[in-house]
Amino acid sequence: MIFLKLKVKDMDISTGKTLVAILHKVDAKKLDLHVSDRIRITKGLKSTIAVLDIANSKKTVPLGSIGLFEEVLKRIKAKDSSNVKIFLEEKPKSLYFIRQKLKGRKLKKEEIESIIKDLVNNNLSQVELTYFISGCFVHGLDLNETVNLTKSIINSGDVLKWNKKIVLDKHCIGGIPGNRTTPIVVSILMAAGYTVPKTSSRSITSPAGTADTMEVLTKVDLNAKQIKKVVTRIGGCMTWGGGVNLAPADDAIIKVERPLSIDSEGNLLSSILAKKGSVGATHVLIDIPIGKTAKVKTREHALHLKREFEKIGNKIGMKILVLITNGSKPIGQGIGPSLEAIDLLYVLKNDSRAPLDLKKKSIELASEMLYFVRAYNSKTKNKSKKYFLDQAKKLLESGAAWNKMRKVIIAQGKKIDNPDKINLAKFHFDYKAKKSGKIISVDNKTISKIARIAGAPEDNAAGIFMYKNTGNKIKKGDTIFRIYAENKTKLKYAKEFLIMLDGIKIK
Amino acid sequence: MIFLKLKVKDMDISTGKTLVAILHKVDAKKLDLHVSDRIRITKGLKSTIAVLDIANSKKTVPLGSIGLFEEVLKRIKAKDSSNVKIFLEEKPKSLYFIRQKLKGRKLKKEEIESIIKDLVNNNLSQVELTYFISGCFVHGLDLNETVNLTKSIINSGDVLKWNKKIVLDKHCIGGIPGNRTTPIVVSILMAAGYTVPKTSSRSITSPAGTADTMEVLTKVDLNAKQIKKVVTRIGGCMTWGGGVNLAPADDAIIKVERPLSIDSEGNLLSSILAKKGSVGATHVLIDIPIGKTAKVKTREHALHLKREFEKIGNKIGMKILVLITNGSKPIGQGIGPSLEAIDLLYVLKNDSRAPLDLKKKSIELASEMLYFVRAYNSKTKNKSKKYFLDQAKKLLESGAAWNKMRKVIIAQGKKIDNPDKINLAKFHFDYKAKKSGKIISVDNKTISKIARIAGAPEDNAAGIFMYKNTGNKIKKGDTIFRIYAENKTKLKYAKEFLIMLDGIKIK
Repeated sequence: MIFLKLKVKDMDISTGKTLVAILHKVDAKKLDLHVSDRIRITKGLKSTIAVLDIANSKKTVPLGSIGLFEEVLKRIKAKDSSNVKIFLEEKPKSLYFIRQKLKGRKLKKEEIESIIKDLVNNNLSQVELTYFISGCFVHGLDLNETVNLTKSIINSGDVLKWNKKIVLDKHCIGGIPGNRTTPIVVSILMAAGYTVPKTSSRSITSPAGTADTMEVLTKVDLNAKQIKKVVTRIGGCMTWGGGVNLAPADDAIIKVERPLSIDSEGNLLSSILAKKGSVGATHVLIDIPIGKTAKVKTREHALHLKREFEKIGNKIGMKILVLITNGSKPIGQGIGPSLEAIDLLYVLKNDSRAPLDLKKKSIELASEMLYFVRAYNSKTKNKSKKYFLDQAKKLLESGAAWNKMRKVIIAQGKKIDNPDKINLAKFHFDYKAKKSGKIISVDNKTISKIARIAGAPEDNAAGIFMYKNTGNKIKKGDTIFRIYAENKTKLKYAKEFLIMLDGIKIK
Repeated sequence: MIFLKLKVKDMDISTGKTLVAILHKVDAKKLDLHVSDRIRITKGLKSTIAVLDIANSKKTVPLGSIGLFEEVLKRIKAKDSSNVKIFLEEKPKSLYFIRQKLKGRKLKKEEIESIIKDLVNNNLSQVELTYFISGCFVHGLDLNETVNLTKSIINSGDVLKWNKKIVLDKHCIGGIPGNRTTPIVVSILMAAGYTVPKTSSRSITSPAGTADTMEVLTKVDLNAKQIKKVVTRIGGCMTWGGGVNLAPADDAIIKVERPLSIDSEGNLLSSILAKKGSVGATHVLIDIPIGKTAKVKTREHALHLKREFEKIGNKIGMKILVLITNGSKPIGQGIGPSLEAIDLLYVLKNDSRAPLDLKKKSIELASEMLYFVRAYNSKTKNKSKKYFLDQAKKLLESGAAWNKMRKVIIAQGKKIDNPDKINLAKFHFDYKAKKSGKIISVDNKTISKIARIAGAPEDNAAGIFMYKNTGNKIKKGDTIFRIYAENKTKLKYAKEFLIMLDGIKIK
């Protein structure tokens, strides 16, 4: 084997994912290496593959050195000045399959598996992954490809297994501020006796994810073993999916889709269903809110997605219930982790301050799901929709759902469960109506943006409280919403964006 | 305007092109910034746009700091610990056009211009450029798009202008080791009285480019003003194109095409013709060698490219002569800058050691070009092909072409013009025939690879000297070629690759 001995330069930088190594151009020449070639780097018995970049200046990487990013240093336990050897590696076969997809060929099961495997092993560069996403976007993925992609993403990480005939899960194609139905729906379903191992994401572009909100009340970063224990004991959980190695390929794909807002349908579908598959769900509720400023804009698009979800579900052995809901405005009053946590506790504890729209939607979603799985229980299999609506309402209003939530909060590591003891951020600003009339629209995106600038979700006590919403009559000077922020600077930024954006229409 | 004040961290790394800045995730949140967002960075009166990346670890970029790559530091004259301000910038419109191309829409002139302008201003990330190249690859570029892309690339940099009716240029779609016809053809054309402002590339994947070879004899890194002066005085030049800001968009595109060997025809055509347009050429000779291990494999493909070149040439006002030649084996005996320089001096000086295949091909190419432009001269416009073949031969064998080359060498900054005084690398290894017979094939790629591993083109005296080539009869023990290298390690690497590759077939 032909190799080079080099001294490590710690580049003091992390790519987030891809394993990158940088050589001086003169060293690269010694093995005739080029940008994007693969090299194997070994230190003692440790070894890894990395994608090569080449430096033209000695400042970046001196001759005789190899610049390594954090991810690579970790893999081979190297430090600045460690001695390593490098070897040329073959380019991965997956690059050939990516090229085929870009040319319009349908990919086979093994080919998709090979791409996802290299992706998860951080053996594809951003540019290479972009070519794959381009191919999926331009030529689409047919049913078989989407099914195989979904399965590959599921198998790219751990898969939770339960000894149950029915395991429930829920997903919302987001875009609606507030709308924190998940913890309420899960509590009702648990109260009805079902197993619900719910893992959620933290927010990426919204003011709060379900994981951010639950984190106000309890610990959410449980590992697979802890999830197993909690769910086995009390029938469900509400944790953060990122703490477990579930469907890791998904995040890398989302990152590359972002710059051009690439919305390949095949990738969207497989991304959602892979997360559900990885927690072992058998029956999944998918909420698609439609509205001008929601992610899905039209009923036609929502219906199309519904059909696709059902087809794929059918192929991967997962029953899917898609509900199309109103996504024209924020739901609930609080926007931001603590503010949303208060809303959901009010609903679960039947507090008079509970936002009725959030309560109503949660009951509806839960009842539809109970109806969907009715046939598995001989006692309920012939009951009507109305029966389950009443049942969901009863489970909520009797305190049974709250009792389940309380158990979840305690089992995961209780922080707080009294909404009146949740602190809100120190500084606030009231946005007041400039004229009297009726609110005819609230822009979801504007509200989310302002809540984020005010500090949500990282500052969990920051965000927005909506006093008024679409449809409400208002008088000039009435407070429409209040912005909460942890310091004056953030409040100032939020106010400045508020002036720029103008997202509330009054007529 | 909303901004943040930050302290610069010099990341000590260069991207080569894209302007990149890294923020800690908590700072990014303050302006709700995401990966691939654009920010404007200002220091005093200096200002630039950069593409944002976000660090999760304090190790990469601490809170309150902004990590800047070399390219950005230079633009705003910042150093480690400089204070800068950042503002959110709108995403460039070109991203919208790239998305449209990916969706299959034909792009208009202004849209292509906008993409190339942002590319040249380093305002597109690698991922974004990859989406554009994917769109071009999948949907192709029609004639108008290719023409507009070519024009945009030409206008992305400087354009040389000459006060002449005819300005000649030449290009070879490479892949053939040796084959250094350009300096000989240019010398003959100059001797015939034509203006030939020849700029060439340095090698990227081959053992030598024309610029590398000419650099053995004379200075090649002339700027636009110096090129102008030399060409005006003696009728031509042979310089390195990279020393001038000609068609800079081209390099960035090539870099992103490499990982998947994306060979979008529209990009290939526009890349070649843009370089010719930027030096002000009116008549261009394009040599397409065909062969199993050449870039173009079949006659059909070569003929198709010929038609495309002619169509585009027609639209951008450039006359193009495409010649399809034999690309089945190396041409000439030397491979590597110095070895090829010796070959071409032998040919120009009518030395008995001149490789006849190189001489013959050069005369043919030059004579075809003289025939192609015959109509512009009343004295020659009715002459036959045979006449120009005789003329090209005469211009070469009379020493007229050598006289022009000598002038070029002197005008650009003479180093050497005596082939017997050109040194070859200190160490060598003779590759000998293991059996007697006839050489039935020589693999162009293997020969190139070994010459590169031996040190070419950076070690200009390294490379390969071919004693025998396809068609020659040999006896067991005859030297087929000699590898030259500057040190024993490189020679050792070259020998090891030699054993691995086995590129010469004897029968």
